[in-house]
Amino acid sequence: MTELKDAIASCAREVERVMEFLLPEADDAEARLFEAMRYSCLGGGKRLRPFIVVESCKLFAVDPRCAYRVGAALEFMHCYSLIHDDLPAMDDSDLRRGRPSCHKKFDEATAILAGDALQALAFEVLSAEETSSDAWVRAQLVAGLARAAGGTGMVGGQMIDLLAEEKEIDIGAITRLQRMKTGEIFAFAATSGAIMGHGSKRHTHALHSFAQELGLAFQIADDLLDFEGDSNTTGKPVGQDVAAGKSTFVSILGPERARSQAKLLADQAARALDLFGERADLLKQVAAYVVDRTH
Amino acid sequence: MTELKDAIASCAREVERVMEFLLPEADDAEARLFEAMRYSCLGGGKRLRPFIVVESCKLFAVDPRCAYRVGAALEFMHCYSLIHDDLPAMDDSDLRRGRPSCHKKFDEATAILAGDALQALAFEVLSAEETSSDAWVRAQLVAGLARAAGGTGMVGGQMIDLLAEEKEIDIGAITRLQRMKTGEIFAFAATSGAIMGHGSKRHTHALHSFAQELGLAFQIADDLLDFEGDSNTTGKPVGQDVAAGKSTFVSILGPERARSQAKLLADQAARALDLFGERADLLKQVAAYVVDRTH
Repeated sequence: MTELKDAIASCAREVERVMEFLLPEADDAEARLFEAMRYSCLGGGKRLRPFIVVESCKLFAVDPRCAYRVGAALEFMHCYSLIHDDLPAMDDSDLRRGRPSCHKKFDEATAILAGDALQALAFEVLSAEETSSDAWVRAQLVAGLARAAGGTGMVGGQMIDLLAEEKEIDIGAITRLQRMKTGEIFAFAATSGAIMGHGSKRHTHALHSFAQELGLAFQIADDLLDFEGDSNTTGKPVGQDVAAGKSTFVSILGPERARSQAKLLADQAARALDLFGERADLLKQVAAYVVDRTH
Repeated sequence: MTELKDAIASCAREVERVMEFLLPEADDAEARLFEAMRYSCLGGGKRLRPFIVVESCKLFAVDPRCAYRVGAALEFMHCYSLIHDDLPAMDDSDLRRGRPSCHKKFDEATAILAGDALQALAFEVLSAEETSSDAWVRAQLVAGLARAAGGTGMVGGQMIDLLAEEKEIDIGAITRLQRMKTGEIFAFAATSGAIMGHGSKRHTHALHSFAQELGLAFQIADDLLDFEGDSNTTGKPVGQDVAAGKSTFVSILGPERARSQAKLLADQAARALDLFGERADLLKQVAAYVVDRTH
């Protein structure tokens, strides 16, 4: 696991560098907006999604500079979703990565706009020639991320998640909502290399399966951290799901069955990548890593 | 002007039809999100930006079906910006197009998410093969709209606009902010035909000049409507700028000089299109139309 942790940390540093390059400080009247975008994007985070992008791209021998740009774009999208999720009208969370959330550090209007601008930036980066000299690839990346992030993906999942606070939902409904809320973005990350490197349908399908199982394992681990974690290590408030009376994998399955389910999903995720041989070793280890993480 | 009004109305009907097709009712758990998106997008609006897209595309003999899709995507982007601008943390506006604004009809969380999903949808539509069989065109459209809508465009302009409520700004600063807030989106609309039809630099430049002048004329007319308009015809509250002590073209120039400035800009906008001959007649009339409009 040390090799994986080093690889994730090394990738995170490079992604951070690319994000910083793509998100310059502005000294004009809109400086406050860029300050808020930089505050919420830079200086922290495991950059797990970009890591999956970069490892997926390695399987198809994609130029690493292009891979890091796709990783940065995806992280901009992820950061925008965190800013909006933390807003008072949504999860009303004051803490993110151990620091005040964007609307606490700035204000609500700035946080809404910073999120909006980050979403646009994600698509701007994907559609730029520096990301791929192949226009088909650029258009496919945009189409894939737009679908994963929109009303039938991440944002749709967040809507269902908010509504789920008001009513009990069953395990099937939670699974569907989490596949939308986090699974589609993981699927984009995992299959991005196949888009960039014109991978076969078989390879794309395998990466998609990996991502679906990984996303669910990740979410169950997230629910467990909220249930029994420590806000000092998670860097965000814990116990919020129980306080909100929200149905989660843990509230329905109980912590022990939830943990064994997460491990089972992680194993399935890893096995989906068998066809890539040892070139996919780090991606396979990611599955075990997300289940064992403490933050 | 009757010919123009008929053309705008006819275009609006077709754009509405395409938007409705692209925004189906959902009957699943995320139905509320799609209901809010449809509420804010369908059933109203002049669809001025799509009209400019469609007329721009005609100059380059682009397939109208493709032009309407680009127009619909741009209108999704516009509608998302209106939803977020109306939020309590932003302009706090209860009325839009004569109906309750999205967060009043639904709630704040739903309005934030509906806006987020509409932005993603705009890029999803632009990047789809149905919009252009030429991947380069799809990628260019995405790049252009992402730049126009992001932190250095529409969202950046909105940030400066909010900050301008707290301090007096001069005419140069207002011009820059409005070029960002509305001008960039108009520029995308006007040049979209040149992207779709691989227009020359000279043609693209002319359309860009047209849009810049048009955007400012439009904004001055908007300020005049807020200053002296009637909420029964505008469909939104009036007198908000004065109440907020906000610097606008009207507060600085006074209503009469503002009006003559708007007419001057509209004339300049029209003249920028002289090289297209009478094929650009409707676009030229749009410039006069936006200055004379009462809503």
